[in-house]
Amino acid sequence: MSKNKKEEFVKDITNMEDDFAQWYTDVIRKTDLVDYSPVKGFMVIKPYGYEIWENIQAFLDRRFKETGHKNCYFPLLIPESLLNKEKEHVEGFAPEVAWVTHGGSEELAERLCVRPTSETIICSMYSKWLTSYRELPYLYNQWCSVVRWEKSTRPFLRTSEFLWQEGHTLHETYEEAQKETLQMLDIYRELAEDVLAIPMILGEKSESEKFAGAYATYTIEALMHDGKALQSGTSHNLGQHFTKAFDIIYQSRESKLEYPFHTSWGVSTRLIGGLIMVHGDNRGLVLPPRVAPIQVVVIPIQQQKEGVLEATQKISDSLKKLGIRVLLDSDKNTTPGWKFNEYEMKGVPLRIELGPRDLQNNIVMVSRRDTLEKFQLSIGELETKIPELLDNVHNTMFEKALKNREEKTFLVEDYEQFKKMMSEKPGFVKTMWCGDAECEKRVKEETAATIRCIPFEQENLADVCPFCGKPAKHMVYIAKAY
Amino acid sequence: MSKNKKEEFVKDITNMEDDFAQWYTDVIRKTDLVDYSPVKGFMVIKPYGYEIWENIQAFLDRRFKETGHKNCYFPLLIPESLLNKEKEHVEGFAPEVAWVTHGGSEELAERLCVRPTSETIICSMYSKWLTSYRELPYLYNQWCSVVRWEKSTRPFLRTSEFLWQEGHTLHETYEEAQKETLQMLDIYRELAEDVLAIPMILGEKSESEKFAGAYATYTIEALMHDGKALQSGTSHNLGQHFTKAFDIIYQSRESKLEYPFHTSWGVSTRLIGGLIMVHGDNRGLVLPPRVAPIQVVVIPIQQQKEGVLEATQKISDSLKKLGIRVLLDSDKNTTPGWKFNEYEMKGVPLRIELGPRDLQNNIVMVSRRDTLEKFQLSIGELETKIPELLDNVHNTMFEKALKNREEKTFLVEDYEQFKKMMSEKPGFVKTMWCGDAECEKRVKEETAATIRCIPFEQENLADVCPFCGKPAKHMVYIAKAY
Repeated sequence: MSKNKKEEFVKDITNMEDDFAQWYTDVIRKTDLVDYSPVKGFMVIKPYGYEIWENIQAFLDRRFKETGHKNCYFPLLIPESLLNKEKEHVEGFAPEVAWVTHGGSEELAERLCVRPTSETIICSMYSKWLTSYRELPYLYNQWCSVVRWEKSTRPFLRTSEFLWQEGHTLHETYEEAQKETLQMLDIYRELAEDVLAIPMILGEKSESEKFAGAYATYTIEALMHDGKALQSGTSHNLGQHFTKAFDIIYQSRESKLEYPFHTSWGVSTRLIGGLIMVHGDNRGLVLPPRVAPIQVVVIPIQQQKEGVLEATQKISDSLKKLGIRVLLDSDKNTTPGWKFNEYEMKGVPLRIELGPRDLQNNIVMVSRRDTLEKFQLSIGELETKIPELLDNVHNTMFEKALKNREEKTFLVEDYEQFKKMMSEKPGFVKTMWCGDAECEKRVKEETAATIRCIPFEQENLADVCPFCGKPAKHMVYIAKAY
Repeated sequence: MSKNKKEEFVKDITNMEDDFAQWYTDVIRKTDLVDYSPVKGFMVIKPYGYEIWENIQAFLDRRFKETGHKNCYFPLLIPESLLNKEKEHVEGFAPEVAWVTHGGSEELAERLCVRPTSETIICSMYSKWLTSYRELPYLYNQWCSVVRWEKSTRPFLRTSEFLWQEGHTLHETYEEAQKETLQMLDIYRELAEDVLAIPMILGEKSESEKFAGAYATYTIEALMHDGKALQSGTSHNLGQHFTKAFDIIYQSRESKLEYPFHTSWGVSTRLIGGLIMVHGDNRGLVLPPRVAPIQVVVIPIQQQKEGVLEATQKISDSLKKLGIRVLLDSDKNTTPGWKFNEYEMKGVPLRIELGPRDLQNNIVMVSRRDTLEKFQLSIGELETKIPELLDNVHNTMFEKALKNREEKTFLVEDYEQFKKMMSEKPGFVKTMWCGDAECEKRVKEETAATIRCIPFEQENLADVCPFCGKPAKHMVYIAKAY
């Protein structure tokens, strides 16, 4: 991209307070994370966006393997008859699948759908493989893309194709499956909180919001900067719904024929949309250091002066040796000022500048993207201070996001107040609920807000449901959601 | 899988000399690498097979990044109109693509094909992005699956869906594109020879064998145990064919509008088929140590005896610390004899056994899968000897494969002798060729053998083409191929 083109980009990110949706669109395009493709609703993930995904993958893949899981790969295309085997599942997914009807010039005898998720094809294989309790648990995962035909799409948040991982496990007992379901949810929480710096609320989905075919769905829910919620990862205890539908039978310890218990769990490139909307500001991206493709950018000032380039190169090399992702930008075609803007917009957590005078004094200027603070550090202390600073940026970003969520989490007295709040001041509403699907449906129809989850951490806020006046059953979080 | 089922498997691998195709099928199924799926021609890659792919990926991804490439992700589905833009390309691929015609319940206005390769969709994006020479080179790669509707399929070797990587680069000059094309071919050679222990012949494809739309296609070709060749990776100099068809224009250093030069290159899960057919024997797999999911299996003998389990655990831990992939199999439900068979069949490069008497003598028994040698080592020297042994296994496997290829590489005097050889004693035939496509076509029709490549290392074997008697132009390798 030419210099002029880029400079124009820096200037025109819409203010998030004026139009959050436009702000989001501006940021993802102007920071080269993603682009629209010639196929409506399908995105191209550009290198700067894909590197974030690679860093997410690296963390998860390590944690999956540490907890005993192995990767495998199942076909992209699923026969219609397989998709139809579990009743709730097909009802949930059939309206949004892409159908392959021809292979080469021939019409297929049976339509194949591009996988929207792989429970059905995987269960058909598990049914073929499993014979004895000795082989359990099955702890398998796959990294792939899935297709769900969406009418209205936004890059990362809702696209007709997205990248994800899907774990599919089988267990001897319900308790073991439940333990696995919650273990994987907690790994997702770890990813979100400890890697992406996004605080999460963990809980169970209501009956009407759970995964098509699940016995119970658990979720991690985050609040975006604009007060809307984002479902960021789900883990399903599928009970024996699919194992019965797909006739997965094994010989138990007691030599009986049994159906195993089943889980599935997934997170996707949607998380990248989440981290943009939680941390970003009017200057652009603010990337959490543990997934930022560039953690530290080093910029020489008056680089033609003696010793400057060599010194920045030395700093860059010494930080790289510590495993830090460093970019030394010594491009002569752009000015330091242009570079400052560029990497600020791109959300690089730390910037190091060094000019001839700094070199004389043996110091550098360091700028933090999250707080916009600027301060001096001596060159000798960079190797100890920069890793500490990266951790500090992470923690500060997490605390800020948590504070923002708390400020946007409200209690309501009654339904009128709830409606007013939802239209004027969106956020999480923490409230009691009767547990009735009809009541939930009415709230959704009248306010567009949905029950995000029944959180694990319950409080007794009142005795009645504020929406219908019936006895309260659970505390829930309600919000409008992406 | 129950013990009985497994024991039955060990016994019935067909002898490769009797029926090589059946041997291959037996081996891949019985060693849990892969399975057939409910969709004809689509395979399920099981964890033991997928781990080999992960090890291949790790090597390539590192080398791609070391040579300046970045990963990204382009859509799975390609509009028919885009596929049609480059004439040779669509003629090559249209007959074998899968067509999506419906999204949800609606018929699409334009058919979308599941990507058979991504030149077209990627070029449509490059055309949108590229403006100036300053942005070049574009050095991008993606890891994904592709679909090519095949009539007759065999797991890993030819399947309707396979996993691969596809690099797509743009350059200012033809020379730069050519340098990139050959650099990537050499990385594939490195992978094949230094990681998979498979010797390769490097060369250029003939006009009729090159990639649909390429200016020139380069290949690495291997010879399988049965004397048939396997194209194991290709790298294409695409010239300006696609950049013109897709109107990719940039402003050059001289401020002119120019079309960039273009390359693409890919290797796939097919390589796993290759390493099975090069190294395997009548006992099953022989895995090259650098991609083997288990490099060393440790088996305790009389593990109920005092100290045995602890000692094997200690050995396993100390080798793991060196980064070696070790499995300690202390399962009480199977005998050591059963385990020996199992891991031999699965091709684990080294086996360590330790029983009570070995423990007293402070030794272990080590068995090599490649040579079937057995020898004692003292426990204390394992940490130095095992890494050396793994390298030695790699080298020995490479030398053996090279010797096998050399023994199956023939010179011929004339066409009659060639035909006889092709039907009786398949292998590589090293011969001169006139360079005429008609001559090549006739040989293919009459013998089913194809020109595998015009090798970089040319020799002048004769002055005339043995097939037609015209003046010889190149030395070529000809073989029947997978």
